[in-house]
Amino acid sequence: MATIDANPPSGTRDFLPAEVSRRERAFAAIRTSFQAHGFEPLDTPAFERLDVLTGKYGEEGDQLIFKILRRGEHEATGDADLALRYDLTVPLARVAARYGSQLPTPFKRYHIAPVWRADRPGKGRFREFFQCDVDTVGSDSLVADAATITAVADVLDQLGLSGFRVQLNSRRALAGLIEGYGIPEPLESSTLTALDKLDKIGVDGVAAELTDRGIAPAAIAALTADLGSDDLAGAVSDRITRSERGRQGLAEVDRVLELVGKVPGGEVAFAPVMARGLSYYTGPVFEVVHDGLDATIAAGGRYDGLIGMFQSLDVPATGGSLGIERILLLLEQAETAAGARLGPEVLVTLMDDDGAPDAMALAGRLRARGYTVDLYSGGGRLKLGKQLKYADRRGCRVALIRGEDERAAATVTVKDLSSGDQTTVAEADLSATLDAILGR
Amino acid sequence: MATIDANPPSGTRDFLPAEVSRRERAFAAIRTSFQAHGFEPLDTPAFERLDVLTGKYGEEGDQLIFKILRRGEHEATGDADLALRYDLTVPLARVAARYGSQLPTPFKRYHIAPVWRADRPGKGRFREFFQCDVDTVGSDSLVADAATITAVADVLDQLGLSGFRVQLNSRRALAGLIEGYGIPEPLESSTLTALDKLDKIGVDGVAAELTDRGIAPAAIAALTADLGSDDLAGAVSDRITRSERGRQGLAEVDRVLELVGKVPGGEVAFAPVMARGLSYYTGPVFEVVHDGLDATIAAGGRYDGLIGMFQSLDVPATGGSLGIERILLLLEQAETAAGARLGPEVLVTLMDDDGAPDAMALAGRLRARGYTVDLYSGGGRLKLGKQLKYADRRGCRVALIRGEDERAAATVTVKDLSSGDQTTVAEADLSATLDAILGR
Repeated sequence: MATIDANPPSGTRDFLPAEVSRRERAFAAIRTSFQAHGFEPLDTPAFERLDVLTGKYGEEGDQLIFKILRRGEHEATGDADLALRYDLTVPLARVAARYGSQLPTPFKRYHIAPVWRADRPGKGRFREFFQCDVDTVGSDSLVADAATITAVADVLDQLGLSGFRVQLNSRRALAGLIEGYGIPEPLESSTLTALDKLDKIGVDGVAAELTDRGIAPAAIAALTADLGSDDLAGAVSDRITRSERGRQGLAEVDRVLELVGKVPGGEVAFAPVMARGLSYYTGPVFEVVHDGLDATIAAGGRYDGLIGMFQSLDVPATGGSLGIERILLLLEQAETAAGARLGPEVLVTLMDDDGAPDAMALAGRLRARGYTVDLYSGGGRLKLGKQLKYADRRGCRVALIRGEDERAAATVTVKDLSSGDQTTVAEADLSATLDAILGR
Repeated sequence: MATIDANPPSGTRDFLPAEVSRRERAFAAIRTSFQAHGFEPLDTPAFERLDVLTGKYGEEGDQLIFKILRRGEHEATGDADLALRYDLTVPLARVAARYGSQLPTPFKRYHIAPVWRADRPGKGRFREFFQCDVDTVGSDSLVADAATITAVADVLDQLGLSGFRVQLNSRRALAGLIEGYGIPEPLESSTLTALDKLDKIGVDGVAAELTDRGIAPAAIAALTADLGSDDLAGAVSDRITRSERGRQGLAEVDRVLELVGKVPGGEVAFAPVMARGLSYYTGPVFEVVHDGLDATIAAGGRYDGLIGMFQSLDVPATGGSLGIERILLLLEQAETAAGARLGPEVLVTLMDDDGAPDAMALAGRLRARGYTVDLYSGGGRLKLGKQLKYADRRGCRVALIRGEDERAAATVTVKDLSSGDQTTVAEADLSATLDAILGR
């Protein structure tokens, strides 16, 4: 066979054991937290019928869909009939349409799964990556918005990412803001796009961009004066309250803040110029930032127009999404710094072929007592040095050595792989010796 | 928008919450067991480059590969450059070629993931289904074969599928059997295919099929006499020992039996006419059957020629595969019979909008004490009856009711949803009351 490129396809990753273990631990913590908050898991196929996906992500998004060729006699047509899922929201909308009355109302679900986008691969940008969404479908109550924020904050805290800030706003308050500064409604989304960059480009940058976008100088002057004020939130809120929509929006924000109350590990505050780029939001919106990490690690909001896309119904919905790939990267860095060992606790070595059944049985007895136990199962000559090197690569903490002498005497030699110390004990004392080394 | 078919694509499934929870629990138990045995998790992309997959599964298999259309300007060509993975073995071979020296030797990995085949959908046959493989790459030691069987047996026992039988054989012993009955080597695989059906078609059926396949009458007579014997294993073994290969094969079987010893929850025995269809096996082979369930629930063996497919190397390998979709079906039936409730333990109801912040805080305190707690977050009027119906659909065990009176008195009304009993207690006594109902 000709030499084949053994790398994974461009933009995708192989996850070797240490990385899978870390990812699985994070996923397990997320699942446990969401379930503790009453959210249920949902899973859908990796691919959907092509017509379910097309037209949902704009022209640019449609270009990035991975399409699956028809099969058998139809393959030669070069046509596609299926496509890999692009996000977890469209599948949720399909599920809501398909199983509506079988699902509880409201339907509270989370979904952790890969999605695929034929984006140009780059640093931290992949063609196969995980999304982690939590949504409540079928409720217009602000309790659902607050419950999303509470659950997301709890998950972040459980993952050890305390120190975050939840920035809360409302699309209604943003509309009131636009009205309050006398900016015409057709320029609303253009203005919000510029405002959303405040953290990155500063007040002057926003002013320049607003000028480019054709906002009247008087409005820009009033807005930038407030953005530069010591009490930004107070100054901007003052403008927002000038319109009915603005007052509704602020009341919405206040109610969500009241419902969420304190969150462990972080803070929640009104952020009057935080707009969340996406245009489909209709109510409260939030973004979770972590200053120490200089990253947005979660975001979400209410999007009442979207979930009913396959039904002739208005279906209210609100939810959030964890930036799970970014979070996993942060956890990886933290763990690498801590130098955690992740392999099986114990390696049972093999000194001679005759001892193999005894070693298998010993490994079995230790597993029954709750230890994770690897048994050396390599081929070739049974050299101890090679096996200890293997134990080190696997991240084992202890190696057990049991040659003919130890078997005859019903003892085991226990080698602590961190300190290098070794001691020979009666098998009856083995658990106590292991527990001491493993710090149980 | 035109009405769209909201079903998942043909041959695929949506997994609603109860089913995801059941599947996740099984996967978690499998992961824990394999890790206790020193196997590590691996994950690879859903798709591979097309040339990695083609030519690996025979002509029939190649027809079943889902191919992904090229993107952008190349889409119009109708050509594919990627394809969804068809199994977990070819990705393992690619990983072994790509990361060889970075992996420990032997490399013990498990992989639980979906694969995709464009098979005609049917009862219990899907186009997207999970495989669960456990393999040891880079060892020619029979300890590795035995360790696979031990791990697989332990997983089955942990999943509650005790009562299984592990049927063990060896490709060398099978070759010896063919030689022992004087059947020419070119007819070996044809003979084994017929023999493998013994359980289904009986001795007469096998004899008829062997005749059709052109085996000499004398060989058929000798073979069917032994197959009909009270001591089938003894009679057939007697023939096998007439050849050198046969003696090697029997020694291999004996050694694996010795190494595996007793397995909890099942039995392991030599099965001299069990052939395991696939032709790539080269050493010990096994099949796990469950008489009560009338199903093969796991299988595997040594396949030394396969993993080196992308390298110019011989890479010994042995492993097994759980029939995970079948196993999940069996677990589902068992659980439905037991009528398990799977939702959050507690629903905190909402009696009035003023009480919502208090209810959110109560739910938070209970979660901090380790309960899984849903808070009713539906819209519309807050009727208790509707919320209790919701609690029932979610499978909650307890509903908490806290109106204005209870809040003023710092009490909570606790409704046991199984018995219908309700009682009002001081919040300080809430945990004790919940624990009594939940049987903690």
